[in-house]
Amino acid sequence: MKPSEDAYGRLIAGYLETGEGIEIVERHDGFINANPHGPAAYFFPFRKWPKAERTAMRLARGRVLDVGCGAGRVSLYLQERGHEVVGIDLSPLAAEVSRRRGVKDVRELPVTRVSRRLGLFDTIVMFGNNFGLVGGKPRAPWLLRRFRSITNEGARILAESVDPYKTDNPDHHAYHRRNRRRGRMAGQLRIRIRYGQYTTPWFDYLLASPDEMARLAKGSGWELADVIDEGEHVYVGVLERV
Amino acid sequence: MKPSEDAYGRLIAGYLETGEGIEIVERHDGFINANPHGPAAYFFPFRKWPKAERTAMRLARGRVLDVGCGAGRVSLYLQERGHEVVGIDLSPLAAEVSRRRGVKDVRELPVTRVSRRLGLFDTIVMFGNNFGLVGGKPRAPWLLRRFRSITNEGARILAESVDPYKTDNPDHHAYHRRNRRRGRMAGQLRIRIRYGQYTTPWFDYLLASPDEMARLAKGSGWELADVIDEGEHVYVGVLERV
Repeated sequence: MKPSEDAYGRLIAGYLETGEGIEIVERHDGFINANPHGPAAYFFPFRKWPKAERTAMRLARGRVLDVGCGAGRVSLYLQERGHEVVGIDLSPLAAEVSRRRGVKDVRELPVTRVSRRLGLFDTIVMFGNNFGLVGGKPRAPWLLRRFRSITNEGARILAESVDPYKTDNPDHHAYHRRNRRRGRMAGQLRIRIRYGQYTTPWFDYLLASPDEMARLAKGSGWELADVIDEGEHVYVGVLERV
Repeated sequence: MKPSEDAYGRLIAGYLETGEGIEIVERHDGFINANPHGPAAYFFPFRKWPKAERTAMRLARGRVLDVGCGAGRVSLYLQERGHEVVGIDLSPLAAEVSRRRGVKDVRELPVTRVSRRLGLFDTIVMFGNNFGLVGGKPRAPWLLRRFRSITNEGARILAESVDPYKTDNPDHHAYHRRNRRRGRMAGQLRIRIRYGQYTTPWFDYLLASPDEMARLAKGSGWELADVIDEGEHVYVGVLERV
């Protein structure tokens, strides 16, 4: 990732330094959104996390892979509770922020490059909607199989997502239809993050309903065993290794 | 202005309805900025305005033209103090919000279309950095002459701007140099406003130092008689009709 592309890392590093910053997410069709809670939430202590995430943390066990660790909130929480944690993030600056905040083992690595060189895991955490990093079909089953190859028996994925169908915004529904017409999943967002002069490349980020998560997992060595839904915007799917 | 282009009006109307919304300003070179205070500030009561604006309001007299009235804060303040005010805004939705909030005479009109059909004015207010709407050379002197033709003797323009040279951001300095190489004024921003699926056309918005404001006014029937600088980001130039 070129420095000029590390908009996400700049946002996080800027927030660490100044306590300010707003995440701008641009969709490929021109829709743009500014999330004022963006960077602050990446630094939240446990008590401020969504309830579904707090509930799901009870299911974390053993050695943990924190996918898209951002500013390190999940890794730090689990480390403090005695877990061995490896945090990975595509963004060099996010990885640096996680390190600076005390995460012991952070790798600058795209999720598609995980391998047994990281060792084996008992839990894979994809919080902050990071189940979205599976992108869509056909990458999702491919990546889930890859995840299987780096886990121990009895492993779990705690996979957070947003059900894309739970929206009243007619523009979002139109986007879903457009995606379907193009053979994409409805919630398969094509987005980029922007911050000042920094712009990430376009990437696919999937919002999946629990049903869709279950279907993507099927046949890739995982099964959706439970859905933790606390009535919030987000939910956490519990995928168990089969 | 097509409804799909009224990003500014959507922002203001959305904020009136929900109390939320963030103004996203994209510069033509790809720099992007989200201003969390944007829409709220358009609704501020007098006591929350920048000090320079509050001081400058003492100089308003007679019949007033409020250029780029937005959500109507300046028009409402002056109306309450007994002034006859005409607010103009390019944005149909902003004009509607101003009307709904009680501004008696609002016209949906680009600043370049002001004419004697609006009657004659004693004061022209360009707050919220709206001196920027003069755009740059050669439009600024042309527009200032046009302003002169719709004012009475002894009229004043209360022109707010930001001195573009007062920044530590090296990216902004690079942008100034780039502008100069292209024969533009250093602070002549080429920007557009974005909100959800709405995007304004690109437009020029000038940040001018007091010296630059004085030079643009010279020969166009106005003279920079005073600069109200309260040590804030913004200042108000007092242009007097000569």
